[in-house]
Amino acid sequence: MAKPLGQLHEEKVFKDPVHRYIHVRDELIWKLIGTREFQRLRRVRQLGTTYLTFHGAEHSRFSHSLGVYEITRRIMDIFHGRDQWDDSERLLVLSAALLHDVGHGPFSHSFEKVFGVDHEEFSRDIITGDTEVNSILRLMGDDFPHKVADVIAKTYPNKLVVSLISSQIDADRMDYLLRDAYFTGVSYGNFDIERILRVMRPTEDGVVIKSSGMHAVEDYIMSRYQMYWQVYFHPVTRSAEVILSRILHRAKELYEDGYVFRESLTHFESLFKGNISLEDYIRLDEGVMQHYFLLWQDERDEILSDLCRRFMNRKLFKYVDMVSISDIHELYKLFEEAGLNPKYYLIMDSSSDLPYDFYRPGEKEERLPINLLKPNGEIRELSRESDVVEAISGKRRTDHKLYFPSELIEAMDDENVKQKIKNILYK
Amino acid sequence: MAKPLGQLHEEKVFKDPVHRYIHVRDELIWKLIGTREFQRLRRVRQLGTTYLTFHGAEHSRFSHSLGVYEITRRIMDIFHGRDQWDDSERLLVLSAALLHDVGHGPFSHSFEKVFGVDHEEFSRDIITGDTEVNSILRLMGDDFPHKVADVIAKTYPNKLVVSLISSQIDADRMDYLLRDAYFTGVSYGNFDIERILRVMRPTEDGVVIKSSGMHAVEDYIMSRYQMYWQVYFHPVTRSAEVILSRILHRAKELYEDGYVFRESLTHFESLFKGNISLEDYIRLDEGVMQHYFLLWQDERDEILSDLCRRFMNRKLFKYVDMVSISDIHELYKLFEEAGLNPKYYLIMDSSSDLPYDFYRPGEKEERLPINLLKPNGEIRELSRESDVVEAISGKRRTDHKLYFPSELIEAMDDENVKQKIKNILYK
Amino acid sequence: MAKPLGQLHEEKVFKDPVHRYIHVRDELIWKLIGTREFQRLRRVRQLGTTYLTFHGAEHSRFSHSLGVYEITRRIMDIFHGRDQWDDSERLLVLSAALLHDVGHGPFSHSFEKVFGVDHEEFSRDIITGDTEVNSILRLMGDDFPHKVADVIAKTYPNKLVVSLISSQIDADRMDYLLRDAYFTGVSYGNFDIERILRVMRPTEDGVVIKSSGMHAVEDYIMSRYQMYWQVYFHPVTRSAEVILSRILHRAKELYEDGYVFRESLTHFESLFKGNISLEDYIRLDEGVMQHYFLLWQDERDEILSDLCRRFMNRKLFKYVDMVSISDIHELYKLFEEAGLNPKYYLIMDSSSDLPYDFYRPGEKEERLPINLLKPNGEIRELSRESDVVEAISGKRRTDHKLYFPSELIEAMDDENVKQKIKNILYK
Amino acid sequence: MAKPLGQLHEEKVFKDPVHRYIHVRDELIWKLIGTREFQRLRRVRQLGTTYLTFHGAEHSRFSHSLGVYEITRRIMDIFHGRDQWDDSERLLVLSAALLHDVGHGPFSHSFEKVFGVDHEEFSRDIITGDTEVNSILRLMGDDFPHKVADVIAKTYPNKLVVSLISSQIDADRMDYLLRDAYFTGVSYGNFDIERILRVMRPTEDGVVIKSSGMHAVEDYIMSRYQMYWQVYFHPVTRSAEVILSRILHRAKELYEDGYVFRESLTHFESLFKGNISLEDYIRLDEGVMQHYFLLWQDERDEILSDLCRRFMNRKLFKYVDMVSISDIHELYKLFEEAGLNPKYYLIMDSSSDLPYDFYRPGEKEERLPINLLKPNGEIRELSRESDVVEAISGKRRTDHKLYFPSELIEAMDDENVKQKIKNILYK
Repeated sequence: MAKPLGQLHEEKVFKDPVHRYIHVRDELIWKLIGTREFQRLRRVRQLGTTYLTFHGAEHSRFSHSLGVYEITRRIMDIFHGRDQWDDSERLLVLSAALLHDVGHGPFSHSFEKVFGVDHEEFSRDIITGDTEVNSILRLMGDDFPHKVADVIAKTYPNKLVVSLISSQIDADRMDYLLRDAYFTGVSYGNFDIERILRVMRPTEDGVVIKSSGMHAVEDYIMSRYQMYWQVYFHPVTRSAEVILSRILHRAKELYEDGYVFRESLTHFESLFKGNISLEDYIRLDEGVMQHYFLLWQDERDEILSDLCRRFMNRKLFKYVDMVSISDIHELYKLFEEAGLNPKYYLIMDSSSDLPYDFYRPGEKEERLPINLLKPNGEIRELSRESDVVEAISGKRRTDHKLYFPSELIEAMDDENVKQKIKNILYK
Repeated sequence: MAKPLGQLHEEKVFKDPVHRYIHVRDELIWKLIGTREFQRLRRVRQLGTTYLTFHGAEHSRFSHSLGVYEITRRIMDIFHGRDQWDDSERLLVLSAALLHDVGHGPFSHSFEKVFGVDHEEFSRDIITGDTEVNSILRLMGDDFPHKVADVIAKTYPNKLVVSLISSQIDADRMDYLLRDAYFTGVSYGNFDIERILRVMRPTEDGVVIKSSGMHAVEDYIMSRYQMYWQVYFHPVTRSAEVILSRILHRAKELYEDGYVFRESLTHFESLFKGNISLEDYIRLDEGVMQHYFLLWQDERDEILSDLCRRFMNRKLFKYVDMVSISDIHELYKLFEEAGLNPKYYLIMDSSSDLPYDFYRPGEKEERLPINLLKPNGEIRELSRESDVVEAISGKRRTDHKLYFPSELIEAMDDENVKQKIKNILYK
Repeated sequence: MAKPLGQLHEEKVFKDPVHRYIHVRDELIWKLIGTREFQRLRRVRQLGTTYLTFHGAEHSRFSHSLGVYEITRRIMDIFHGRDQWDDSERLLVLSAALLHDVGHGPFSHSFEKVFGVDHEEFSRDIITGDTEVNSILRLMGDDFPHKVADVIAKTYPNKLVVSLISSQIDADRMDYLLRDAYFTGVSYGNFDIERILRVMRPTEDGVVIKSSGMHAVEDYIMSRYQMYWQVYFHPVTRSAEVILSRILHRAKELYEDGYVFRESLTHFESLFKGNISLEDYIRLDEGVMQHYFLLWQDERDEILSDLCRRFMNRKLFKYVDMVSISDIHELYKLFEEAGLNPKYYLIMDSSSDLPYDFYRPGEKEERLPINLLKPNGEIRELSRESDVVEAISGKRRTDHKLYFPSELIEAMDDENVKQKIKNILYK
Repeated sequence: MAKPLGQLHEEKVFKDPVHRYIHVRDELIWKLIGTREFQRLRRVRQLGTTYLTFHGAEHSRFSHSLGVYEITRRIMDIFHGRDQWDDSERLLVLSAALLHDVGHGPFSHSFEKVFGVDHEEFSRDIITGDTEVNSILRLMGDDFPHKVADVIAKTYPNKLVVSLISSQIDADRMDYLLRDAYFTGVSYGNFDIERILRVMRPTEDGVVIKSSGMHAVEDYIMSRYQMYWQVYFHPVTRSAEVILSRILHRAKELYEDGYVFRESLTHFESLFKGNISLEDYIRLDEGVMQHYFLLWQDERDEILSDLCRRFMNRKLFKYVDMVSISDIHELYKLFEEAGLNPKYYLIMDSSSDLPYDFYRPGEKEERLPINLLKPNGEIRELSRESDVVEAISGKRRTDHKLYFPSELIEAMDDENVKQKIKNILYK
């Protein structure tokens, strides 16, 4: 029988540029970090295609996951000893924090859409299936892996535990804002996390924030708002995402049409068929994907090879603000006339298609709202106390853009068609 | 005929976490950045296997190259208008700064050793061969590409120009110290670059530093010293490097022995044969390499598959300080007795094998020494003025370590052999 | 006749923690910094009594003034060569930037209120009167001092010049937000000044901001909002300010009542009389003022000595949210009954009494609004484009608090009165 | 009888730009911070006249003292629970850390020399005499104040306790390097304090550092070295110090000669007489001192008024490297001939006169050396392990400079004398 896991003989630390150090004292956490499924996160970038806009954004989900763990660990230290907090949940929370993204695939946004898969399911599978992660978690008890999966899936009965990982101000978001700001180099993502941690309090219904810390929370909300518009929804990043998604679409379409690829499709075949196994999924990472894109640059199919060359060499699509429906219709026809397949070369993209979960109380939300704890013990939802948050909360901003390959348009033979297209796009 | 390149209509900027912004005003530079050969640097990490020790060190040679360019650009602004500086060399220096690393392959340290290739040759080939980079450079004149290559190769006649890219205090080193410190999160690499730039002066024989800035330079030298020992020579990184190098050795050996790999070797075959083309080389990157390592995890050859699993899942070798020659001899025999091939599982590594070029005046050095300009016009070599630098300059420190797979030793059947091995290693 | 002022033989720099370096190339600026009137700003804290709340806030108006100059200098570099900018105004703008606060007295907020003086008048007097500053400025032409004074007074005809020093996003505010954030240690005051400077454009009617930089400006506005509530209106700072203001009131009242002070009042006498000379004013600084407060700790007048001891030893008043008019009335009587002069010991303070000029378009404002320059050349006022700014703009927040000496109340003999007072204050 | 002091009901924090937050949980510490003697430290600058060179250096001994306390508090947390550490000493160490500088007067360096007083004696007097500090300390036991004074005086028997406050790597130095670097804006003073704290271990003979942290300590030592030469011994700062010291000398000399000052000398009289009381001393601060300097600008004595004007308006002395003894002799005569009193206008200053205690093992040192704890339990003195430290340790660098008023020399009537003087000074 396995030895139960305890404290490490000596604390381990990771040097981290965002939190200075990540501290690990629990054998469980140390062993989880060492699993192949967790190490794989080193090969998946935290921000997908954003590195093509902000060249510093080359950091991985591995470092983000350590960061979420570290923030949670600090919250545990603050909660330790308080009446409303049950320390026996500590390792469960820490494991869930560490593993919350373990199912993420390469460039997940486009990837999941095209192949109809869901990283949350894979997270659950990795935690409860036949994996190294699972074998470590089971050392804590047979039902421990399922508990961890439940916390991540927000179905765990203890709401406080869930709220630490999934609320409007959870460890996940706090880490990614700070981390993405650090690596991109933008100043927007900074907020006073130390202050926020100091004013967090446990309650039966979830974490609340002492109202004396409201301004720090406002600042955090503004950071998120700015990061979404400055970084996450940046049109150049979306251009790369649009191309990536078209590559996957095209390859799948070709496969379904019986096209014969020059190179074997090892990893992709089961994806195209829609029956990818956990083991195959775990082997997928951004290196593998880019390996195929490199190969496909030489495929006979011109659309696939063009799109792959664009992605690998960063020859992205240009963009304009969305045009009218009738203009779209017209452009579609003109593209076809000029021999440019509009399905792959005339793409609409809206930023609200992206996982935008900015604070909107009242809407059906997957994450819990932020509650303030007033000195008199009353609990008040943040936007009722803060003008700034209230102002932002009500509104959904969307940014519709149209993407297209400007140099292919420029190179069109038919001057007439070309001019018509340009008249619509650049009017 | 091609239009000559001039200024961009509007300055372009890249957000950079180290220098805040990278400014591009010259069309030439802008176009060079857009080439596929330069974009490829996004897929080669600046610090090779260091990310396995410092998880933040996931930054690429792309961002470093932009940084070297930016520092050089700032120096150009400082030199502008000074008697000793000829502004007509400006674009040459900037191009060389940007492209100095363009020939770097994936994990170059081990890669170059095993396959007997040299990234400097590939840099020259990319600059002067049939590439996008070359076609852009030629817009500045037919001999321009060769001039750029000469500056990088340090054979360009104007010593001042060469010294900006290759001296003991050049733009390359200044950027990598700051950048590597930023991304690893260690504090050691920081020094006052703004001060150093302000006291740089052009002379016929190369850049000199006004002696009033000596302390800033001392601080820079100490940063380098610390970064070498804290980051670049870290034994855990070297453990990963040792394994990587053994993987490449093993695969090459197997290939030469006629072993049939399960998957095609597309990119590797010409490497194994020793006749890699420029085009093949350009297609090599870390993603491709890791793709093969992932596949090779399932190869029949146990050594290859074990080493690949170790590298991909970060199950590194342990290490101890180097033991005596006779102990090595003894260990070698014991490993063989236990069925563990010592060629792959008992590895000596010395940090002075790494590209250590810490300041050593008097030795045959590829980079120029740092000269101080005294108020009276006299030029003095740094270590003659600075106690601190003098102290460090004389000494070559080496760190010899022995690497081995501790859990394979632990799992040995023959208790007697195992105990003998452990007695030597852990005495 | 005086030599006209030109460029310095060699650029001078000041090390500055906020802007890294302050660069001075103009002889005029260098000489102005050396004047006794400008050096005096070293002895006036930038944030008055804030150091009693944020102990790091010990920085002076001297360093702030250098910072405003430096930001303006950088804007000049950006404007240089643009059609709409006339470089002949450069030194005028830089002088005005440097000298805009030269008339500030010690703890000006309370000081000016009690003595009915105005630092803006003293700024003008220092610039146009018989001072070292004036004698330097006159080297640039006889009317140069008056032009500088006009720019600071916002009466100079060139609106663009005025807007650099006095608009909603001028060099003054940008420096103080960054500087006050740096020295207090709060994170709120940070925004991307480099980005904002890059998108500033000169127009006939003042500086405008390219709309691509709107989010950076939003972030700046939010920084201001947060700094006002977190730092500038902090109730503990206001408590110190309340006491300071009562000290000055009491001393003036005593003087007017013929009270004989133990020590001579050298500097204060003309203030009390209301006929302070420029020379006397220049000699006033915070050291002098605190010197008197130290002496007055031993005055026979109990109120004056108590208040001075409070201020010097940071025994501040406690505060509660404002109570009702009838409660105030009641408290007033109870304080009198208990022998505690309510004029000095029961003080209302509202944060909107403080120089709050947060962005409110439409109101009569002394500073110009922020205008965005759209790509099509259109000019749009910021709050019409930005949801966030719009949300904040409409509202004036005020914070009314009541200040009192809790330990004197606690020490009251009459238990009945004391209890009544506490019932009102702490209900 | 007084209630014994315990934990605060709720932790108090101070925002600190260097350590982010200063945490106070002990009632004792909270009350000590509130005393008038401790609050007085707000009116004494940490770096004396350095603000005249680095304008950001306006921070006080108050903030430094809080910083030393905070670092010590963190060390206490690290030591807590270790065998070699006795938690009952905790409050003693914290009190000593907080109060170690409580006796510092204004501009202590010059002040103490001229008046023959010693801040260490005053520290002891404030701790053990009739003060608010003493009355708080006595709540912990009658002998507690003396124990605190003994720790500061390094006579307390427990060497470990003493070493926390007074060794080559104590909380005092760690705070001042970080703080002075932060406020001056120089980058030299940074080192990885978090790493150093993590490797500190208690032993019977004092704090030791785990040898794995040696490089962090090297970096700290280099920071000190750089800060001394870049900041603490800066010749411009020394020029201000030279003038300050001459002012005090001159005033004392005049007083002793029976000169009648225009204004009363309240605070200075007892100083001049050499019998200053504790109460008088406590009332002295930099504001008071500068108040007198402002007044003395108008004294009839030309030397005193000139020096005071110089100090207040930063018209400092120029300097050259020290000349030969015979040149000094010659200059002395020439100055006298020209009517410029050399005692006040021709000053030698050596940086080694300043409190330079850079690491020199073997010399009689007031502070304990740094000892490393090797993995095998062996203790080794730092310079025996570190090349860098060894290199610096052996050498005492001194910098002799000669200070003089260049414009007074320039204004000399006798062209012959003037030329002779200039020939010597500027040869």
